[in-house]
Amino acid sequence: MGEFELIRRVFWRATGATPGVWLGNGDDAALLASSPGCVLAVSSDMLVQGRHFLPDVEPQALGHKALAVNLSDLAAMGARPLAFTLALALPRVDEAWLRALAEGMLTLADAHGCALVGGDTTAGPLTLALTVFGEVAPQRALRRDAARVGDDVWVSGALGLARLGLALLRGELAMSGAQAEAARAQLLRPTPRVALGQALAGLAHAAADVSDGLLADLGHILASSGVAAELDVEALLREATPPAVRDLPPALALSFVLAGGDDYELVFTAPAARRDAVQAAAARAATPVACIGRIVPGEPAEHPLADGAGRVRLLDTQGRPYPLPEGVRLAGFDHFATIAA
Amino acid sequence: MGEFELIRRVFWRATGATPGVWLGNGDDAALLASSPGCVLAVSSDMLVQGRHFLPDVEPQALGHKALAVNLSDLAAMGARPLAFTLALALPRVDEAWLRALAEGMLTLADAHGCALVGGDTTAGPLTLALTVFGEVAPQRALRRDAARVGDDVWVSGALGLARLGLALLRGELAMSGAQAEAARAQLLRPTPRVALGQALAGLAHAAADVSDGLLADLGHILASSGVAAELDVEALLREATPPAVRDLPPALALSFVLAGGDDYELVFTAPAARRDAVQAAAARAATPVACIGRIVPGEPAEHPLADGAGRVRLLDTQGRPYPLPEGVRLAGFDHFATIAA
Repeated sequence: MGEFELIRRVFWRATGATPGVWLGNGDDAALLASSPGCVLAVSSDMLVQGRHFLPDVEPQALGHKALAVNLSDLAAMGARPLAFTLALALPRVDEAWLRALAEGMLTLADAHGCALVGGDTTAGPLTLALTVFGEVAPQRALRRDAARVGDDVWVSGALGLARLGLALLRGELAMSGAQAEAARAQLLRPTPRVALGQALAGLAHAAADVSDGLLADLGHILASSGVAAELDVEALLREATPPAVRDLPPALALSFVLAGGDDYELVFTAPAARRDAVQAAAARAATPVACIGRIVPGEPAEHPLADGAGRVRLLDTQGRPYPLPEGVRLAGFDHFATIAA
Repeated sequence: MGEFELIRRVFWRATGATPGVWLGNGDDAALLASSPGCVLAVSSDMLVQGRHFLPDVEPQALGHKALAVNLSDLAAMGARPLAFTLALALPRVDEAWLRALAEGMLTLADAHGCALVGGDTTAGPLTLALTVFGEVAPQRALRRDAARVGDDVWVSGALGLARLGLALLRGELAMSGAQAEAARAQLLRPTPRVALGQALAGLAHAAADVSDGLLADLGHILASSGVAAELDVEALLREATPPAVRDLPPALALSFVLAGGDDYELVFTAPAARRDAVQAAAARAATPVACIGRIVPGEPAEHPLADGAGRVRLLDTQGRPYPLPEGVRLAGFDHFATIAA
């Protein structure tokens, strides 16, 4: 058995276990069917060693995270996961490492009924590129361009924890105990908010997942929708910031909460009149959410893909400009910097 | 404008140009609809610098080839291209290089009505991972496990030319003129047999594209289908081998034709009673095809992904074992070896 055959077999499952998968991996292409009335939601993410993960990362955690960040994109569309493909470049073939990678990835896939339906393997610097497919009724999809003036701005879970985990991993900060463990887990094994995304489909207007930082990702919504936002920084720190981050020096805490990447929470907008319905949807999905601001008028973007972080106004609870402490860094996560930097 | 925004803009197109694309790139996921009665065919391929292309490759040719090898997988399913995603790792951002890459890729995409609907960009060793989506009626799809005893074995176009192009590029062989140019073009800018694949859907039984070499790729069909094949080597050399390859020393010519990768022709099986229909389909697709053998009984494979090159018997026109000259190398294209080796 050659190296390729080993790799294919490690990831192989018999077709038939997942509804909608007519033909799984092993052919030139997989065959997928979507439900009547639904369209297919498709998203790709690539993880490169030294940028998105350290060389000594546990393979099981890497397999989990590579799929989790892709499922997070489906969550941010309100889509139900259906299947995914994996393209894998490996410097060498280590069977135990590969089996652990496959276990981390396929365990999360099974939890979401999401079948691995194909891929490619090659020698090369360690790189994983995944493409996920989900389904959603197109009128219910959570599009970035759907935020409306008068919407509330909401965020799920807690922000800044993954950035704290990165600081601990890099040795920039020292901390021990359960909070340090939670921060590392948020970075290494994030939970995609798949149930929340589906619960919000048809209820929320716009959504994005927080992969590059709150300002950057909310900015994408604002630019696409041609609006601006006012954020209540005190509400954000009170209701959507974990204690371990809130207790850091203020400049660091705000940098992590506003611009820390990799949390994979959802930021979304919904009509102010539907606050109770949003809370009920979050309760059904067993996911905490917090209302942290509102959508206000803004200029149309000069390009559909323009950045929009500058459209976010940071206010205190009285509606005055929030006094940012010195040393706050609000640039989003830079994928052209290395995680090991 | 940051580097990411530049990259996104270079590849960006407005949604709406391609039927079936509800929402194109720029959101967390694209939204795709398939036609009633069709399922979605999905395939991924990854290209790594130094393995699949040389560092000095022309970016336009690289963009073309990265999409062509993925479209070739759709062709081998009999599917109509619909859309694709691109995950791109780049060591640095060079706008002119990027624009040329995008032009090579999007020109081929436009020729097939195949929209770029999403992707990801990161810093890293130059790597392209594409996932393509097509549609096909599931009963008409050209599956690898559908070859039947009594089928003919066919191949499109000509084999071995891309491997000759690689030998010229590496300086292993010297040749000039139109034939050398054609060999280089076959390697650098292959033509995916998309029209032929669709013309064969519902007519041929099984198909695969010849990316790893004829024996390896026909072997996948044979193992999946639990059959074996007899190939008429003289017919193969006469009807599916370009003069530039046929005129090489016999051991080299046979190595290139039987095991040279990267040609992206189709190998397929069809009932012997449908020979005229196959020729008519090929004529409609303006693609030459040649009948080079037949499917015979074989053992079920011990694993659905097992290799099957050993199931191919090489015969002369009288049905006797073909006398292979010394020095023939029949191992398939090894992606763990470098293209620059």
